[in-house]
Amino acid sequence: MKKLCTALLGLAAFCASADEGMWQPHQLPQMENLLQQKGLELDAGSISKLTEFPMNAVISLGGCTASFVSPQGLVVTNHHCAYGSIQYNSTPEHNYLQNGFLASTLEQELPAAPGSRIYVTEEVSQVTDRMTAGLTEMEEAIARFDAIEDRSKQLVAECEQDPGYRCEVYSFHGGLEYFLIKSLEIRDVRLVHAPSMSVGKYGGDVDNWMWPRHTGDYSFYRAYVSSDGKPADFDPANRPYVPASFLKVSAKGLSEGDFVMVAGYPGSTNRYRTAKEVEDTFTYTYPKARQYRQEMIEVIEQTSAPGSDARIKYESTIASLANYAKNYGSMVESYQQTGFLARKQAFENALMEWLNEDEARLARFGGSLDELAQLIEEEARYQPRELAMGYINRTTLLPAAQKLYRLAHERQKPDMQRKPGYQERDMKKFEQSMRRISRRFDSEVDKAVLLHFIKNYHGLAADQHVVPFDDFFELDESLNEARLRQMLDKMYRETALDDEEQRLAWMSASVQDFKNSNDPFIRYAVALHDWEMAQEKQDKAIKGRYLSLRPAYMQAVIAYNQSLGKPVYADANSTLRVSYGNVRGYSPKDAVWMQPFTSLRGLLQKETGQEPFNAPGKLLELARQQEYGAYKQDALDSVPVNFLSTVDTTGGNSGSPTLNGKAELVGLLFDGVYESIIGDWDFDDNLNRSIHVDSRYMLWVMENVDKAHNLLEEMVIVK
Amino acid sequence: MKKLCTALLGLAAFCASADEGMWQPHQLPQMENLLQQKGLELDAGSISKLTEFPMNAVISLGGCTASFVSPQGLVVTNHHCAYGSIQYNSTPEHNYLQNGFLASTLEQELPAAPGSRIYVTEEVSQVTDRMTAGLTEMEEAIARFDAIEDRSKQLVAECEQDPGYRCEVYSFHGGLEYFLIKSLEIRDVRLVHAPSMSVGKYGGDVDNWMWPRHTGDYSFYRAYVSSDGKPADFDPANRPYVPASFLKVSAKGLSEGDFVMVAGYPGSTNRYRTAKEVEDTFTYTYPKARQYRQEMIEVIEQTSAPGSDARIKYESTIASLANYAKNYGSMVESYQQTGFLARKQAFENALMEWLNEDEARLARFGGSLDELAQLIEEEARYQPRELAMGYINRTTLLPAAQKLYRLAHERQKPDMQRKPGYQERDMKKFEQSMRRISRRFDSEVDKAVLLHFIKNYHGLAADQHVVPFDDFFELDESLNEARLRQMLDKMYRETALDDEEQRLAWMSASVQDFKNSNDPFIRYAVALHDWEMAQEKQDKAIKGRYLSLRPAYMQAVIAYNQSLGKPVYADANSTLRVSYGNVRGYSPKDAVWMQPFTSLRGLLQKETGQEPFNAPGKLLELARQQEYGAYKQDALDSVPVNFLSTVDTTGGNSGSPTLNGKAELVGLLFDGVYESIIGDWDFDDNLNRSIHVDSRYMLWVMENVDKAHNLLEEMVIVK
Repeated sequence: MKKLCTALLGLAAFCASADEGMWQPHQLPQMENLLQQKGLELDAGSISKLTEFPMNAVISLGGCTASFVSPQGLVVTNHHCAYGSIQYNSTPEHNYLQNGFLASTLEQELPAAPGSRIYVTEEVSQVTDRMTAGLTEMEEAIARFDAIEDRSKQLVAECEQDPGYRCEVYSFHGGLEYFLIKSLEIRDVRLVHAPSMSVGKYGGDVDNWMWPRHTGDYSFYRAYVSSDGKPADFDPANRPYVPASFLKVSAKGLSEGDFVMVAGYPGSTNRYRTAKEVEDTFTYTYPKARQYRQEMIEVIEQTSAPGSDARIKYESTIASLANYAKNYGSMVESYQQTGFLARKQAFENALMEWLNEDEARLARFGGSLDELAQLIEEEARYQPRELAMGYINRTTLLPAAQKLYRLAHERQKPDMQRKPGYQERDMKKFEQSMRRISRRFDSEVDKAVLLHFIKNYHGLAADQHVVPFDDFFELDESLNEARLRQMLDKMYRETALDDEEQRLAWMSASVQDFKNSNDPFIRYAVALHDWEMAQEKQDKAIKGRYLSLRPAYMQAVIAYNQSLGKPVYADANSTLRVSYGNVRGYSPKDAVWMQPFTSLRGLLQKETGQEPFNAPGKLLELARQQEYGAYKQDALDSVPVNFLSTVDTTGGNSGSPTLNGKAELVGLLFDGVYESIIGDWDFDDNLNRSIHVDSRYMLWVMENVDKAHNLLEEMVIVK
Repeated sequence: MKKLCTALLGLAAFCASADEGMWQPHQLPQMENLLQQKGLELDAGSISKLTEFPMNAVISLGGCTASFVSPQGLVVTNHHCAYGSIQYNSTPEHNYLQNGFLASTLEQELPAAPGSRIYVTEEVSQVTDRMTAGLTEMEEAIARFDAIEDRSKQLVAECEQDPGYRCEVYSFHGGLEYFLIKSLEIRDVRLVHAPSMSVGKYGGDVDNWMWPRHTGDYSFYRAYVSSDGKPADFDPANRPYVPASFLKVSAKGLSEGDFVMVAGYPGSTNRYRTAKEVEDTFTYTYPKARQYRQEMIEVIEQTSAPGSDARIKYESTIASLANYAKNYGSMVESYQQTGFLARKQAFENALMEWLNEDEARLARFGGSLDELAQLIEEEARYQPRELAMGYINRTTLLPAAQKLYRLAHERQKPDMQRKPGYQERDMKKFEQSMRRISRRFDSEVDKAVLLHFIKNYHGLAADQHVVPFDDFFELDESLNEARLRQMLDKMYRETALDDEEQRLAWMSASVQDFKNSNDPFIRYAVALHDWEMAQEKQDKAIKGRYLSLRPAYMQAVIAYNQSLGKPVYADANSTLRVSYGNVRGYSPKDAVWMQPFTSLRGLLQKETGQEPFNAPGKLLELARQQEYGAYKQDALDSVPVNFLSTVDTTGGNSGSPTLNGKAELVGLLFDGVYESIIGDWDFDDNLNRSIHVDSRYMLWVMENVDKAHNLLEEMVIVK
């Protein structure tokens, strides 16, 4: 089947016969036969209902996925998803990050990091009609955009009348369908158990995206609600939330070839972009973004001595920049090697051929497709400027001043008319972001990065330049670097925005206060404001045009696929999806086969005693003694640690429960392999592999190393 | 079977059930059953006779192996074995290294590099009795050493009475057995065909020791003799040598699991060293040697700018140093990871237990084993000095002066009494080595390396110091580096040894001439001579003691193995051996499986267009078009390029014919994988893999890329 698809004009990218697809649960029944062939033992109907087992056990942490694993609201997710909470509770005396943490009783459980949330999806409603009524009749693209924004805000406001709920309108297929999703928002989240970092983050950044992998990437939270069962802020009197259902945990695990599915909240993918968009991204945007990130790392490292306060503040920034630079590097490599663009083009040609076969079809879609192509072309025009300005806005004080000034403007409007992100419901997060600057900002580093990217910007072609920006920084054709340095020195010397209280005070200042200010960064914000607003308007106009063109394109794509008998899944958009597949290895290159399970034996081989390859002594001792207990996989003659599967996942899926054919938890998804990083754009059946921590490893460590007997008792373990 | 062996006290290293062993052909009949089980289709007797097919087609190039592949003396070996000859014939106008070389007629064939030889083994005689008669009765260890040296020289001289032959006495099992080997020495060797370096050395140093591999490491020579069929110097009137037999070349090739055997001249192994020797080597010698080599590379690189004349002269030195540093690094890693020492110790314990079981046995061997242990201890005492002096002697002028002075001394004796290497038969090579200095020496680099290693030496403990050395360089407790620099500057400024003609002139100078000389390097040679002679005497005494102790140890090992029903092979010693095994992948680490065949498809993936991954355009074109012709392996759906097997090989085996069960040539051995570098000491069934170029790739390139139709016609291809 697979070969046939590949042979057919190289359409593999759109050939859903492979394990491609992040499906909305309601789509699963139409794939029942396939799923059952692959190994699903439940009926597909039972995994299609959000409010029934097992889907109602799958929850979002906002950015990560998790699941309930006990009737007392015990939640399992990735160690890297709970990392902030472990770090938040760590002190030099109680270094939980280093040593792990286990609450033996409910009383010992610790509040998660501020802002931690658990979202339980309770209702999903089709709101396409309400969102799109009369939209196509609107002449002005901006009006379309505003209508969508207003209607969305209206729907959310209505839905959030119900206290304790968070609501959001999600667009599918670029605006072809809209769903309103209502989630219970649990605000009292507590840390229950985390293994030591040397288990939970074994391999660290070295092994990130890599296989073979030996990471125990799991941790436990618990959801708490008020004594009357409602979401509430942290209170010692709160009690564990009783979920509608929870997952059993398998101690039997999987073998090579077994069926698995992953339910979770994947963030975003770009599987339906056009060939032109793909080409732009992989030949310009990603290579350039990679370069900018590498430059930014260099500047930060040159400006902050290793181990200095400044460097410590930027460590996580550097790690994130490096992670994405690696990420972009991988995608560019894959793009060059796998013939992705040619496959895209072949698909578009086939689509056009199919449209041309039928006059009505062509009349219906042809125009929109041409317009879409034109719009994409148009939008690409200012890409160099947008990328360069984007990195200027990765500094700290400049965009902080702009956000504060924008807030002053928005606060003049009624709440409902404000730009999302500036409404009352957003103010807690806004304040947190302003506070966070204190921990992640150093004046010298920020200045050096700003200088570097202003110089980059200065090198752009004249038509890419922004007049008020040039005026503010007194840029002219030849760069006077000494003068620019002096100006930046003065700005950073004179500003008060580096003071946390001052920043917070600006949150309630008026537009006039800003205009009267002499603070150089506030002056920058005021100077750029009109241009920013004009840009935003243009941007809305473009988005408004996409709002009618993307749905048309997706309608054509869906109709074409239907004509071939293939269901179509929507790009990921942080809503609940199900992916399915099998436990399977892969060949990253000629003559190399990656087997699908790693083992405790392999962990011993990798162990160096130096971070990040420094497992706890007790773990090493037991592994050397081959004390595998009930968790040995016979074929491996060891305890399986991580495994590979073909399921289609992306960022946001982290922490997702990996389920067997009976919907028992057999692992947690936590990463993908290097060759699948391009997966956000292109699913390659031969290379796309997700990485999971095996439930047997989790249980083995909990039982033998961390003695988490209370949790093993609390969960239902399938032996 | 394998598992059982490993379980038995971890004796895998001595458990010949695996494919371990470089067997003397006469040993093969006793393994007939095993060989036939594995896939040998001939009877073992027929591969045990040196003067019959196929063994008489397997020849030595002195350091490499080769084989006859036509009745007109056509010889195939590795590209890296013919490299010197290709380079020797290359000019800027005719860059055969870059572009490859093909003689379409006999007339177009080119003389190989000076000194190139083909050795055809014609007679192997047991000479143990003549070598060892009365040896044990000799009291003095030096006398034993001298006796062995004298008897060996005598046997060689007698044998070389027959003109056109080269003879040598080889010691087996550390002196338990001696064989005199008589080889026809063909002196007119011509280059017939080599692919371009971008085929023959594809992957270069980056891929050296690595899998997956895509190297077309083959080239062709032809052996020529005088018109009356005798070895002769190059002469246009010479004619191709007619070998007694030759190998057919298979175009059908192998599949995974197939039987293969390799016949060749492996250089040297240390499989029977004691645990103490192993521990010394892997915890002191190799780590230290690795460090010294890395230091030497650093000094050379700091003293010679990239691309400078000096750097060019040292490129091959650097490459060789780096190669061995990698080599030692791999061995130390393997030693730490595979439990080699523990297995050695377990074997020794088992051996001792077996000796203790029987009083007569113990009486016979026990004393020798104790003495051997003591001798090893004793020999290790001056290891730091020997290693440090060894690297001082890796400079150029210092050892050249010493060799020349030694020659003056040796020339005072009758030829038969001279030290090997200083006899008349060695003078051609001696002269070549003195000439070669001109191409590989730079005064500033040599001086910097010498300074560095004198400083290293100076840091050794006092008891490791050499008095005349310290005196000559005026070294005292604290190092006066400035003075030492001045002294070296003066030495290199004043010496005439950097002049080729001067060096050659010293070859006929008398001892007195040396003593009268003011050349600072000659003065060094004279100053150190007495100490060197005393050292040599001590060294002979130690070797003399080994000459009786190693055979005793080996006798015990052999008897013990015999008691377990296991045949024992001797350590490699550059004599003709046969290894057998199967085509098989391996797992270098947890969850990674190296498959046994690479393919043209994989070469395309690896191709970057930059050296060393820059295959010829024609090759790439054909590979992209999948023009595989008759050479496709169906399972691979491509042309196989290289393959892995379990055969036991080492340096010297390079160029060996890889034979299938019918003794057809299916490939050429050219390397081992990284994890098998420790193979010279320890054969691990799971990790020891040899790398071969597949005959199908060789034939495919010859037919399609290089159009070597004349050679394809000349060989007998089995289709």
